[in-house]
Amino acid sequence: MQQPDQITACLIIIGNEILSGRTQDANLAIIGKKCDALGIRLTETRIIPDVEADIVTTVNNCRAQFTYVFTTGGIGPTHDDITAAAVARAFNVEVVRNEEAVDALDRYYEPGFLTEARLKMADIPEGARLIDNPVSGAPGFQLENVFVLPGVPSIMEAMFDGLADRLVGGDPILTENVLTNLLESVIAKDLEALQEKYPDVNMGSYPYFRKGKLGVNLVLRGTDGDRMNDAADELATVIAGLNGKVLNRLSPA
Amino acid sequence: MQQPDQITACLIIIGNEILSGRTQDANLAIIGKKCDALGIRLTETRIIPDVEADIVTTVNNCRAQFTYVFTTGGIGPTHDDITAAAVARAFNVEVVRNEEAVDALDRYYEPGFLTEARLKMADIPEGARLIDNPVSGAPGFQLENVFVLPGVPSIMEAMFDGLADRLVGGDPILTENVLTNLLESVIAKDLEALQEKYPDVNMGSYPYFRKGKLGVNLVLRGTDGDRMNDAADELATVIAGLNGKVLNRLSPA
Repeated sequence: MQQPDQITACLIIIGNEILSGRTQDANLAIIGKKCDALGIRLTETRIIPDVEADIVTTVNNCRAQFTYVFTTGGIGPTHDDITAAAVARAFNVEVVRNEEAVDALDRYYEPGFLTEARLKMADIPEGARLIDNPVSGAPGFQLENVFVLPGVPSIMEAMFDGLADRLVGGDPILTENVLTNLLESVIAKDLEALQEKYPDVNMGSYPYFRKGKLGVNLVLRGTDGDRMNDAADELATVIAGLNGKVLNRLSPA
Repeated sequence: MQQPDQITACLIIIGNEILSGRTQDANLAIIGKKCDALGIRLTETRIIPDVEADIVTTVNNCRAQFTYVFTTGGIGPTHDDITAAAVARAFNVEVVRNEEAVDALDRYYEPGFLTEARLKMADIPEGARLIDNPVSGAPGFQLENVFVLPGVPSIMEAMFDGLADRLVGGDPILTENVLTNLLESVIAKDLEALQEKYPDVNMGSYPYFRKGKLGVNLVLRGTDGDRMNDAADELATVIAGLNGKVLNRLSPA
């Protein structure tokens, strides 16, 4: 259960192609891991289409609910890149040509290549703070607790890394994986008892069923490495007691 | 923009491991394509944790907004499988041991292997209609417009296929991809003009930037194959006129 003092985040993935499943999103995995390291709990992700009304509603809904909101996608130069305009509307501000963003694009492009289509990427909501793009020039932006990032994962990641000093988190969230050949139903009862013994370590059970092999990936999450290690040790004992095998154990780095 | 007469759907992916990005979701791509074929517009996806209050709020919010709601995950036998109880709470009904579900599990397991932990998978909200599981016995269920499915993709897919006669859609939604080496900013203006000429064909522009190569995947979506073909032909002419190449063109099956 979410604690009132936790720092939370919501990721809004904007793009018809992600939503149709034709393009596999890669940004959730990147942002999820970076939030863990920063001690920020990514507690929801929404995938929405390139439709202004949907973006406005979702951004306004989420920025009221979560400490931080990250959006990815829709800040390029084409007609379907409507995120900047939609976020401006969500905040009731105008989109203006941002001189700092023009300068960033100007530094990136060879003389003569900063076309009007590219300049569209300098149209940013009034009052926004830019997010530097060390890869391809076009900046993202921050309005209050909303951080607007591009959809291309390598560029998004480089820009997210530049945000570390603007994001206030907590203790890093650690993950430990214990992979076993036991069936979920076999370990269910003991796992529940162990979860009750370690309320501060979140225990998830994820069955796998592929290439004819069944088993469970047991995932422990928490902020106290010693407690997690103790819980994982007890879990290994439980598995052995049920005549199962620990196939793999991945401890926090 | 969404039309008032469109049949829409929302997918709710339930699971901490998907949300943390450690497990890559595969169900969105499956359900997205099946919705296209059924003429159902999957217009939102939400990824939420295994937290009862979050599931209740999200299910109630979404079932009021969309024609259909699909959930994946959280219907197994372990302590973190709370979807059935949470959906029951969303509908203000009790969870009861469903005799039809017990029979289905009984047919699946060898005598003596239907343990109490496994029987938990027959605890279903009162009044729900079961969704047959041809792979591993444990059923999903439907309450009004909400369809509760498991998280394991191969099982989820087999169960979704059994729903065809319960889902009323429209004309199948077709997709055509045109991959070009042109930069997004180069094609932006002509693409916008083409989008205006074909308002019934949704045109998306998705830049790629990998292994040092830049380009755009242009995606056309609509229900009229002839119109999409005409639009894609014109798009190829536009690309040639800008000295670009069509690297690949994938038409609807």
